[in-house]
Amino acid sequence: MEQQTINNIAEICHQQEIEKAIISPGSRNAPLTLAFVRHPKIQCFSISDERSAAFIGMGMAQADRKPVALICTSGSAALNYAPAIAEAYFQETPLIVITADRPPEWIDQWDGQTIRQENIYGKHVKKSYNIAVDLSHADAQWQTYRVINEAVLESKTGVQGPVHINIPFREPFYPEKSENWNYDQNVKIIKSIVGEKRLNENQISQLQAELKEKEKIAFVLGQDDYSVEFLQALDQTSQQVNIPIFADVISNGHGLKNAIHLPDSICMSMLKDSKTEVIPDLIISFGKSIISKNLKLFLRKNVKAQWHVRNHHAFISDPFQSLSKQIEAEPISILQHLNKSSSAEFLKLWKDKNTEAETKTNQFLSTQSFSEFSALQDIIKKLPEDSHLHLANSLSVRYANFIGIKQGRIKIWANRGTSGIDGSTSTAIGHAISQKDQNHFLITGDVAFFYDRNAFWHKYPYPNLKIILLNNQGGSIFRMIKGPNQQAELDEFFETEQRLDAKSLCSELGIAHFSAFDAESFETIKDKFMKYPQSAILEIKTDAKINQKIFEDFKKQLIS
Amino acid sequence: MEQQTINNIAEICHQQEIEKAIISPGSRNAPLTLAFVRHPKIQCFSISDERSAAFIGMGMAQADRKPVALICTSGSAALNYAPAIAEAYFQETPLIVITADRPPEWIDQWDGQTIRQENIYGKHVKKSYNIAVDLSHADAQWQTYRVINEAVLESKTGVQGPVHINIPFREPFYPEKSENWNYDQNVKIIKSIVGEKRLNENQISQLQAELKEKEKIAFVLGQDDYSVEFLQALDQTSQQVNIPIFADVISNGHGLKNAIHLPDSICMSMLKDSKTEVIPDLIISFGKSIISKNLKLFLRKNVKAQWHVRNHHAFISDPFQSLSKQIEAEPISILQHLNKSSSAEFLKLWKDKNTEAETKTNQFLSTQSFSEFSALQDIIKKLPEDSHLHLANSLSVRYANFIGIKQGRIKIWANRGTSGIDGSTSTAIGHAISQKDQNHFLITGDVAFFYDRNAFWHKYPYPNLKIILLNNQGGSIFRMIKGPNQQAELDEFFETEQRLDAKSLCSELGIAHFSAFDAESFETIKDKFMKYPQSAILEIKTDAKINQKIFEDFKKQLIS
Repeated sequence: MEQQTINNIAEICHQQEIEKAIISPGSRNAPLTLAFVRHPKIQCFSISDERSAAFIGMGMAQADRKPVALICTSGSAALNYAPAIAEAYFQETPLIVITADRPPEWIDQWDGQTIRQENIYGKHVKKSYNIAVDLSHADAQWQTYRVINEAVLESKTGVQGPVHINIPFREPFYPEKSENWNYDQNVKIIKSIVGEKRLNENQISQLQAELKEKEKIAFVLGQDDYSVEFLQALDQTSQQVNIPIFADVISNGHGLKNAIHLPDSICMSMLKDSKTEVIPDLIISFGKSIISKNLKLFLRKNVKAQWHVRNHHAFISDPFQSLSKQIEAEPISILQHLNKSSSAEFLKLWKDKNTEAETKTNQFLSTQSFSEFSALQDIIKKLPEDSHLHLANSLSVRYANFIGIKQGRIKIWANRGTSGIDGSTSTAIGHAISQKDQNHFLITGDVAFFYDRNAFWHKYPYPNLKIILLNNQGGSIFRMIKGPNQQAELDEFFETEQRLDAKSLCSELGIAHFSAFDAESFETIKDKFMKYPQSAILEIKTDAKINQKIFEDFKKQLIS
Repeated sequence: MEQQTINNIAEICHQQEIEKAIISPGSRNAPLTLAFVRHPKIQCFSISDERSAAFIGMGMAQADRKPVALICTSGSAALNYAPAIAEAYFQETPLIVITADRPPEWIDQWDGQTIRQENIYGKHVKKSYNIAVDLSHADAQWQTYRVINEAVLESKTGVQGPVHINIPFREPFYPEKSENWNYDQNVKIIKSIVGEKRLNENQISQLQAELKEKEKIAFVLGQDDYSVEFLQALDQTSQQVNIPIFADVISNGHGLKNAIHLPDSICMSMLKDSKTEVIPDLIISFGKSIISKNLKLFLRKNVKAQWHVRNHHAFISDPFQSLSKQIEAEPISILQHLNKSSSAEFLKLWKDKNTEAETKTNQFLSTQSFSEFSALQDIIKKLPEDSHLHLANSLSVRYANFIGIKQGRIKIWANRGTSGIDGSTSTAIGHAISQKDQNHFLITGDVAFFYDRNAFWHKYPYPNLKIILLNNQGGSIFRMIKGPNQQAELDEFFETEQRLDAKSLCSELGIAHFSAFDAESFETIKDKFMKYPQSAILEIKTDAKINQKIFEDFKKQLIS
């Protein structure tokens, strides 16, 4: 393949609005590396561990709301991308995954770094393309350029997500010194204009007729990349028509006036016996997953009608087992048609329950001795407005969901596409590198943190990122849930005790390390940590058994 | 699914000779965890990072020559196994990969840790099975037990390799305290007896007739898990009939009398002009990949006939572009029929060239100032007989290939299935844990080492493992090969400079750390390191530019 063709691939990516590429070192991908690095308008980052590289790229794509290119060499490099690609697929984050490959004639010939890369990401990419190895025929060039255009458009159109382009290369990979180097700005570009879906008069009338029969309506906000305009419109509508918004921590609806931001805590006490007055006749939902298990169970048990509003559907998802209608249209365009007032008593009931849950939580935590739960509440209250809060999976995101966020303009991020333990730190670092002028905080546990420690293994700075590390020396979530905590194998095979702390890692990386292990040490350093002008880790070390006791008492008190 | 069925799966695995299971913590896989951990005859290990866990399991399977079970929870956990599974597939190491899954009704319902796990490993497993979620019907149970039997047999029969079993689980995952716990020793077991492939009289006569016409025959030994008996028989045959054995470092043929153990060095000078007397009329090859690029190029250019002997063929591999005959039979049974003497001059020519390359290498390295190349030679010479030497990919395995191993009973291991940078340390640790009574050494570079640092993140000891870490602060191989070293992007995007050293890691882990950065410091500590009674890391820190110069001089001198 000629270098000029590869340069033109980079040029098409640029003209299709790709601004960043994450490159993992390799020789087979050298023509791609050179094409992207030398392109004057694409910013490139070199990151060695492909697993972290892909999560960092995904974080950048989320922060920029633009596809990011991932570029790796042939062989298992491509497989190390897989966890982040699945996460991006279910979170609907656009990525252009470009894997260099051996030419087809060398597959299965016991050559180095040669595996079977066609369709290697299976059902976790929107599309997968194989570029021809021989591009000397003009039609093959036309196909290649058309495919690159299609791939980038596909990643960011409709349901967004990762797209895979596999490119085989024969040697030589490196240009001669004398070789001309340029990008053909007149390369084939295919632009795409996509109309917005709007309901017609008949569809609207019918919806409104159905709405008339509903007395108690609730909005449910799942995780999604909502625009500020949508959230403002939702806020306005919900106030006009008295509709509460069930908005758990990953929904980013916590700043809305009618937000019920502690639905998990509220529903915990209503699971056994749900009184009619709290049960919605209809829920109107937006976005994707919610994290509140008690809310899910409450809705599954009680709700008979759900309208789900999204612009696009990759598949029919019915997480509350109550879905009766999919509305495929611009969500913001639907809101204005919801002009049927819901019951003011219903709204008040839920808002009172929300206030009650909040009061109970505050009262409970104020009486407890030092624990990671109370320390976390303290930290969360101190987070500045307009900052980004990244929540790692497992216990971190659940603690935050029970604590709740009060600062309306904090933006929440969490890898709830696959909910894996694997890439939260890398994702947060991707965000922080992309949005240098904003403050980022990551709350994570020790298993998630050490699992993804290669997130830090590169030279790109993130002085705007602070990490709160809850180190209870193992996967404490297993201690918190009934089942594993009653098995003899808890310590070794569920919690999986681990003894690392972050001090060595911080000294290796030159990151400031703050450590708290009791109320006094926490008081002494928490403000220093928050004000520290560079990246820093606050490691909160606690005993897993005490945390377990406090969390169990917390749940008992919620349902009392 | 009832726990008793899962217990019986563990029982079948045991009766099919699985002795070890690597379990990564999770809740969805709890029934599997409990079934395997409580089984009195299966040894279980809890390892949190699934990427490392799978490589450690692969290492154990290689050491034990038995399939090892990998068990993980649903979601991206399964994807983190993928790099090791591809390596095991191409190295033909048997693994039973058991992934817990959500029940099918919850796929694509925005539930946590739910992805599309059917056939998730694509073309890098021998087979993939999905167990039914509802096993109440007797036929479903029969199918499940039959499938588990088949899966384990499949992994270790014919071309060995990984097999995937995906098992969906509905809640509850945990048994009640009162629940009976037992393993049905009379569970359905299907045994398998596999005949050995032998050539018949006619086939042998025909081979021998063809052999008669060949004057210069060479054996080529690719990487494989050869038995001691085979290597002894090969040694004997090659001496009887004057056949040289091209045996580079990963072949494990270095201890054979007629081994040409430096074929890469020898062929470097013969690529341009290969005289007829050194060119084999026929090569008879065994095993899979070789690492010597110059040998490959020499054979591709010059050899017209190749017979490849293996018991089984997954596909036709023709790495020297000279393959004319596949012989599918027990390799050891073929050797006795090769009763045609090859030319004694031809053997002597190659043996002389081998001695010459060895002398040149020794002379060259003895005159050089301290470098990682010379330090490595020193260490390799000191390795005790009957130990295991693990070579990480990239530069480590290539240095060792140019240095050569003289101790005949050292066993060499290297992940040359996919030749990835990703899991060499984990694989070596798997070997060391499995073979506690034997000494293991790993030679690795800094990129491979830090990439896979989670290899150490568990509680299982490996006091019999010593690591020689060549820390030149980046992927130095790119500096050594022509092409990247002439690009302006060398430092950032090919070599990808990294600044970590292993000292912090060692202090975190309680592993002894020895450091050498010049001749004096190396002299002082090398013997202490070799004699150290616990696991230890010898970090050899050198300047990449000096290493580059020395390696280039070495190559010049070889072809002079």
